Amino acid sequence: MTLPAVIHSLRHTSPLVFCLTNTVVANFTANALLAAGAAPAMTNLPGEAGPFAKTACAVLVNLGTPSTEQLAAMDEAIEAANQANTPWVLDPVAVGALPVRTRYAQRIVSLRPALIRGNASEIMALAGHRSTGRGVDSADPVAAAIAAGRELAERHGAVVAISGPADAVVSAQRTVMVHTDGIELTRVTGGGCALGAFAAAAIAAGQDVFTSTVAAHAYYGRAAERAAALSLGPGSFAAQFLDALALTDPQELGAVRIEEL
Amino acid sequence: MTLPAVIHSLRHTSPLVFCLTNTVVANFTANALLAAGAAPAMTNLPGEAGPFAKTACAVLVNLGTPSTEQLAAMDEAIEAANQANTPWVLDPVAVGALPVRTRYAQRIVSLRPALIRGNASEIMALAGHRSTGRGVDSADPVAAAIAAGRELAERHGAVVAISGPADAVVSAQRTVMVHTDGIELTRVTGGGCALGAFAAAAIAAGQDVFTSTVAAHAYYGRAAERAAALSLGPGSFAAQFLDALALTDPQELGAVRIEEL
Amino acid sequence: MTLPAVIHSLRHTSPLVFCLTNTVVANFTANALLAAGAAPAMTNLPGEAGPFAKTACAVLVNLGTPSTEQLAAMDEAIEAANQANTPWVLDPVAVGALPVRTRYAQRIVSLRPALIRGNASEIMALAGHRSTGRGVDSADPVAAAIAAGRELAERHGAVVAISGPADAVVSAQRTVMVHTDGIELTRVTGGGCALGAFAAAAIAAGQDVFTSTVAAHAYYGRAAERAAALSLGPGSFAAQFLDALALTDPQELGAVRIEEL
Repeated sequence: MTLPAVIHSLRHTSPLVFCLTNTVVANFTANALLAAGAAPAMTNLPGEAGPFAKTACAVLVNLGTPSTEQLAAMDEAIEAANQANTPWVLDPVAVGALPVRTRYAQRIVSLRPALIRGNASEIMALAGHRSTGRGVDSADPVAAAIAAGRELAERHGAVVAISGPADAVVSAQRTVMVHTDGIELTRVTGGGCALGAFAAAAIAAGQDVFTSTVAAHAYYGRAAERAAALSLGPGSFAAQFLDALALTDPQELGAVRIEEL
Repeated sequence: MTLPAVIHSLRHTSPLVFCLTNTVVANFTANALLAAGAAPAMTNLPGEAGPFAKTACAVLVNLGTPSTEQLAAMDEAIEAANQANTPWVLDPVAVGALPVRTRYAQRIVSLRPALIRGNASEIMALAGHRSTGRGVDSADPVAAAIAAGRELAERHGAVVAISGPADAVVSAQRTVMVHTDGIELTRVTGGGCALGAFAAAAIAAGQDVFTSTVAAHAYYGRAAERAAALSLGPGSFAAQFLDALALTDPQELGAVRIEEL
Repeated sequence: MTLPAVIHSLRHTSPLVFCLTNTVVANFTANALLAAGAAPAMTNLPGEAGPFAKTACAVLVNLGTPSTEQLAAMDEAIEAANQANTPWVLDPVAVGALPVRTRYAQRIVSLRPALIRGNASEIMALAGHRSTGRGVDSADPVAAAIAAGRELAERHGAVVAISGPADAVVSAQRTVMVHTDGIELTRVTGGGCALGAFAAAAIAAGQDVFTSTVAAHAYYGRAAERAAALSLGPGSFAAQFLDALALTDPQELGAVRIEEL
């Protein structure tokens, strides 16, 4: 499948993405999925998360603001997703900086996520490398996290995506850099979190996790470039970015520099 | 009361609407109420929900992302609302698709909601009809849910509103179709949820639940038409829609086709 | 430090502000902090809130939608902040109108907040004066709350900010009125809540709490004036306001009328 074909398939199939995510970005995440053509849905309740994970096309587990109840729902969702062969994405928000989620992420990372998406500090912390992250911000360059990403990919059979000025997508076999100018996304909360959800939708719509992840990062970054050109500050950028997720032609992915390392 | 008079009254009286709603749309719901001229307020805490329901002008119970604690607060709010004769609105989000909320909704629907607002699949599931909903999306046409809406209306003495390409408002005696082009609202999360809150405000501001519900749906849809004409994609639409809730002249309701069935 | 110097310092140092805030405004608060140049981060989990409060530059405790678990996290964050000499800001949302948060606020107000920020009704209720607030709305004028603010300031050694058509900043020694036209902020949910977070960032970036609080209120109000001039309704205003938080020149604070009482 080509990169544009992944995005076309996403729009055509409108995959249902079950998001267990944080309260800060839930709205932006749902709107990003809707804009891109996917169908978001959320519940954080044990007793619902399991059944829902079985009917969804993909599941996102984002550790941004866990509650005790949401963590129990995540356990249930992951187990059900694995039983049903539903792909699930792990976004280890602020892992390394905050203790409860760090222990939790270290446990669930072994439960076969299809994709792990985070910033450099989060990926390094999750792999057990020394990182210097501060809350949700990365203090480490993407290049410094590629070895950690490779380790996670080999250990858990997952694709690992590391977000930064250029994004790295890493598997046990390959490393690809996706070059877009997404700097404005760092001025909007949930810029990375919604990318994790969008990648989940692309995985559901595509044929292999690696290609879908590259397609999601390339399209997302391209939409950010388009939105940045049409906005003055972070408020107008956020609205333009949602528009761009709906309006950017998937064929524009041909203009994104994809670098095989 | 005429339809424009309901909206004028809402702006004039600024009813306090206590929303127990989901974390995905809480922000958009509050902004929609503020834009329309109502006063939103939220708490999900037992011990607060009861007293607050007594002082509010209307209460919204939206089942989008229930937590154990929020469900307890909802119980308390409904009981207090009924004691104080405060009208309350039930939005059975994803009922039929998710088990815990389905059982919960089946219990509270008998506690005299003034209005039940959902999509066709949710209304059919709540009435015990066979539906094909998938999470928050309806897979059933509005027409297929009118009989279910009528049953709920007769059984519980409520008005029932079914959202779709055209909205149906059903009571034991009447069925009215409200024809507006609100398709863009399906590209913004909370498009339906905020309508439930806005209808609660209109019920508080009006004289009878049926007329207020029709007025709310007509005005909301008209605002969506206005916003769609001024926007390119879902991000700019959402901002324009909030503007339109504030700026649309209630007299424009005269141009909305209201069809008595 | 001059008022513009506080804002320049905030942009330069990008303080990490740990927000324990309500689910309605978490997204807008994070976006306001990002737009202004600060770094927001959130967790509501006991076991994380304490460690995080020690590494953050400032902590916000906003009582808008408390859960049992979030209240426990707030206890932990306040204790840790005080141990680490991290300044913390109390936003007593709807205190006086809702019972659980009122008792909670009356307890934690004695735990040395650097700043207490609320509307007139909330400040009066917190001081034990008779107020007429209704949920999150103030029914009392700012002038009527200055005596209550002074009492709180003297009793707890805090700066107290009272939001309204003009904002009052009160300490045991001084009272200053900040005159801007921020009326449009009352049409966007979280207009006040995000100001509390922004003030926390300014306190982290500045040298004394009083000056930083005045600078935050003046800059925030100035940004609101700029946004109002560029927008038609509350939806476009919200986007323009975030732009304005990023783009307003701190030197414009020279044009804001600051009145010493």
